[in-house]
Amino acid sequence: MTTVEQAEHIIQNQVRDYGTELVPFDRSTGRVLAEDILADRDMPPFNRVTMDGIAINYSTYANGIRTFYIAATQAAGDKPVAVSDLNHCIEIMTGAVLPNWADTVIRYEDVLISGNEAEVLVDTVNQGQNIHFKGRDKQQGDVVVAKGRLINPSIISIIASIGKTQVLVKKLPRVAIISSGDELVDVHQTPAPYQIRKSNNHTIKAVLQQHGLNAGMLHIADNAEQTRDAISKCLANYDAILLSGGISMGKFDYIPQALEQVGVRKIFHRVQQRPGKPFWFGADAKGVLIFAFPGNPVATFMCLHRYFLPWLRAVMDLYERPVYAMLAEDFYFEPDLQYFLQVKTTVAPDARLIATPLAGNGSGDFANLADTDAFLELPAGRDEFEAGEVFRLWRF
Amino acid sequence: MTTVEQAEHIIQNQVRDYGTELVPFDRSTGRVLAEDILADRDMPPFNRVTMDGIAINYSTYANGIRTFYIAATQAAGDKPVAVSDLNHCIEIMTGAVLPNWADTVIRYEDVLISGNEAEVLVDTVNQGQNIHFKGRDKQQGDVVVAKGRLINPSIISIIASIGKTQVLVKKLPRVAIISSGDELVDVHQTPAPYQIRKSNNHTIKAVLQQHGLNAGMLHIADNAEQTRDAISKCLANYDAILLSGGISMGKFDYIPQALEQVGVRKIFHRVQQRPGKPFWFGADAKGVLIFAFPGNPVATFMCLHRYFLPWLRAVMDLYERPVYAMLAEDFYFEPDLQYFLQVKTTVAPDARLIATPLAGNGSGDFANLADTDAFLELPAGRDEFEAGEVFRLWRF
Repeated sequence: MTTVEQAEHIIQNQVRDYGTELVPFDRSTGRVLAEDILADRDMPPFNRVTMDGIAINYSTYANGIRTFYIAATQAAGDKPVAVSDLNHCIEIMTGAVLPNWADTVIRYEDVLISGNEAEVLVDTVNQGQNIHFKGRDKQQGDVVVAKGRLINPSIISIIASIGKTQVLVKKLPRVAIISSGDELVDVHQTPAPYQIRKSNNHTIKAVLQQHGLNAGMLHIADNAEQTRDAISKCLANYDAILLSGGISMGKFDYIPQALEQVGVRKIFHRVQQRPGKPFWFGADAKGVLIFAFPGNPVATFMCLHRYFLPWLRAVMDLYERPVYAMLAEDFYFEPDLQYFLQVKTTVAPDARLIATPLAGNGSGDFANLADTDAFLELPAGRDEFEAGEVFRLWRF
Repeated sequence: MTTVEQAEHIIQNQVRDYGTELVPFDRSTGRVLAEDILADRDMPPFNRVTMDGIAINYSTYANGIRTFYIAATQAAGDKPVAVSDLNHCIEIMTGAVLPNWADTVIRYEDVLISGNEAEVLVDTVNQGQNIHFKGRDKQQGDVVVAKGRLINPSIISIIASIGKTQVLVKKLPRVAIISSGDELVDVHQTPAPYQIRKSNNHTIKAVLQQHGLNAGMLHIADNAEQTRDAISKCLANYDAILLSGGISMGKFDYIPQALEQVGVRKIFHRVQQRPGKPFWFGADAKGVLIFAFPGNPVATFMCLHRYFLPWLRAVMDLYERPVYAMLAEDFYFEPDLQYFLQVKTTVAPDARLIATPLAGNGSGDFANLADTDAFLELPAGRDEFEAGEVFRLWRF
C-alpha cells in the first residue's frame, strides 16, 4: 500500500505552471506575484517632512538665530514654498515636501509660535532632523516586491503606492468538483427517506474559496454513459478534478471504469492512512489530475488539506514550513496506518502549540470536525502516542 | 497617557449588536450563526450501510447458513429491496438504506460471489455490523450547530445536509474608510513631485476583506467644510469610521475640528505605544465609533489588528484565545512605550511558536511589514527583552 509520504511525493511531482494573468490590484490579495514590482520613482519621492512644525535652513540655527519670522505655511500636497530671506522659516506639515532652501524641521512641541514669529525652545537641533530623505528606502527602478511573493495587505499598499492598477499574477488551476450517486439530492430538495442531500461538494468548494479558488461543481448520476461523458468534458476544460465518493468496490460505482475508458491512468489507489484509505489518484495524458477522495466526509476533508492544498501551494511555487504541535493527551491507535487525529489547537502561555483531541472523535461525521481546527498526523507503525510528544499538524 | 490595556478595554466596551440577516448558505463561510441549526430528520436519516457487500438477516447466519442466494442488488439511493425468503441476501452498496428484513452487512472482501450465490468466508460476523444506525448522531429537532458559532467549511456541510439554503447570520457593522489630505492622489493618477498615491486605505480595505467585511471608501480634501459634510454623512450611514492620518497637530488637519462640530466625543487620544502613539478614538451620541489611526502606515496596520479586529470579533460575540510566541533574539527598546515588534513566526520542531524580529526593522514603511507576519507586543516599563522570553502575539 502507498504510504502517506509516497502519496505526497507523487502528487508534489505533478506540479506544472498554469500561466499568468492580469488582475485589478485591489483584488489580488492571496494571489502570487508573477512580475517584479519596481519603484516608479524614488521612495520617498521627495525629502518628506515627518513632523508638523517649522522648516529652517540649519546654518541660521548654527549661527545662533533662535527666533524666526514665519514667511508662509506649507501643507502636505502643496508645492514647495520659497522664502525671500534664508533667516525666515515656514510652518510645514507632515507629508509635505521640504523646500530646497530648508534642510531641518523642528516640531511644534519644541517651538513657541506667537504672531508671525516662531521661537525655538530646545537646545539640541540636528541638521536634517524630522526628514525622510528622497530615495532612502528605494531608488527608482529598484525591485520593491519580488515576483513569487504571496500578495498580502502590506504588498497591496506597495502596489498601490507605485500606481499599478493591474498586477500580473500566477493563474490558478481550473478545478472541478464532481459529486456522484443517485442517493444524493440538491440542498433545496427534500430527500426521499432513502436519500440524503449533497454536502461534501459544498465543503470542498468552501475550502477552495478560502484559498481564492472558485471551483466548478458538477453532479453525475449512477449511469455509465453519463459518467463517461461528464468526465470527458471535465478533462477537456479543467486542470484538476476532485471527486468525492464513487471509488470503491461497489457495483454501481461507474467512475473507475469511466476514468479508464477516457484515458485516465491510475497512479495510486489506497494509502496507508485513516481516514482516507481508499484515496485514488491519477492523471490523463495531458496532465489533468484526478483526486478521487473517499466518500466519508472527514476523509475527503483530510485528503483535501493533506494532499490537494499542498499541491496547490507547490503549483503556486509557495513553500510553507511544516507546523508541529504537542499532543495534549495519551492516544492509542492500533492499526498500522498513519492516523489523522482531529484536534483543537491552542497556544499555551509558554508559546507551545498544543493539540487536544476531541472526546468521542472516532466518528466520520462532520459534527466533530466542526469543533476542531486541525489534524495531528500520527505516524504508522506505532500504537501508543504519549501526551507531550510532538507531531506534524495540518490546520484547517 | 492611555495605556494599551486601557485603550483595549475602552474599545471592547463599545460593543453592540448590529442585528441579523439571511445569506445564501454557500456564501456564509466566515459569518457568525444567529440561529440554532436543527436536524430536519434523524442523522443518519435511515439505517445506513457503511460498506459495499451483502445484507443478511443475522438469525440465518446464527443458524449456521454460510451460503446465500443473491435475490437482488440495491444501490445507494434505491428504495429498500424486499426478499421473498429470509434466507436470501441482497448485494448492497455504501450509502444505501438497509431494508427492514436485514440487520447485518458483510463486506465484499469477506464473501465469495459466484453466479447467484454469496459464500461467507469469515468466522466472525456480528449482528448489526457495517451499519450506521438511524438517529445515532442526532435526533430530528436536535441542535446540530448552536448559534454563535463561526461558520467554517465543516459547518457548511452540516447546513447543506439539513437543507437550509439560507442561513441567519449576525450582520457585520457598516464600516467606512476615510483617507484625507491634498497630498494624496488616486492609484491610477500620476502624482506631482510633491504628492504621493493613496495606499493606506487600500491596505485597510484588504485586511477587512480578509475578515469578510466590505468597507466603503471615501477621500476628503484638506477643506474644513467638505470634511465636516463628509464626516456627517458617514455618521448617518455607517457604524464605524476608520480614518488614517489627519489627526495631528498640523494646521491643515481639519478632522479633529470637524469631528467636534458634528458631535463626535473624543474618548481617548494618544496611547502609550509605538508605533501608533497618536491613535484617537471617539464616538457620537448614536454610538458610531471613530477609529482615527495615525498616518504612519505601520501604525495604522498595527492599530487595525490590535484594536479594530478584536472589537469586530467582540461585536460578533467571538472569543479568541490569546496567542503567545517566544522571542528569538535579544531586543532593546528604551522609551516607556508598549512596543509592537514586527516579527516573522515559525513553529519549531518542539512545537514552540518562535517570533524572529526582522533585521533593520525600525522604519515605518511597508516594505518591512510585507516580510513579517505578526507583531510581538513588548510591554512598556522595560528596556531589555531577552531571547527565550514569551510575549503576546498579534498575527496578520
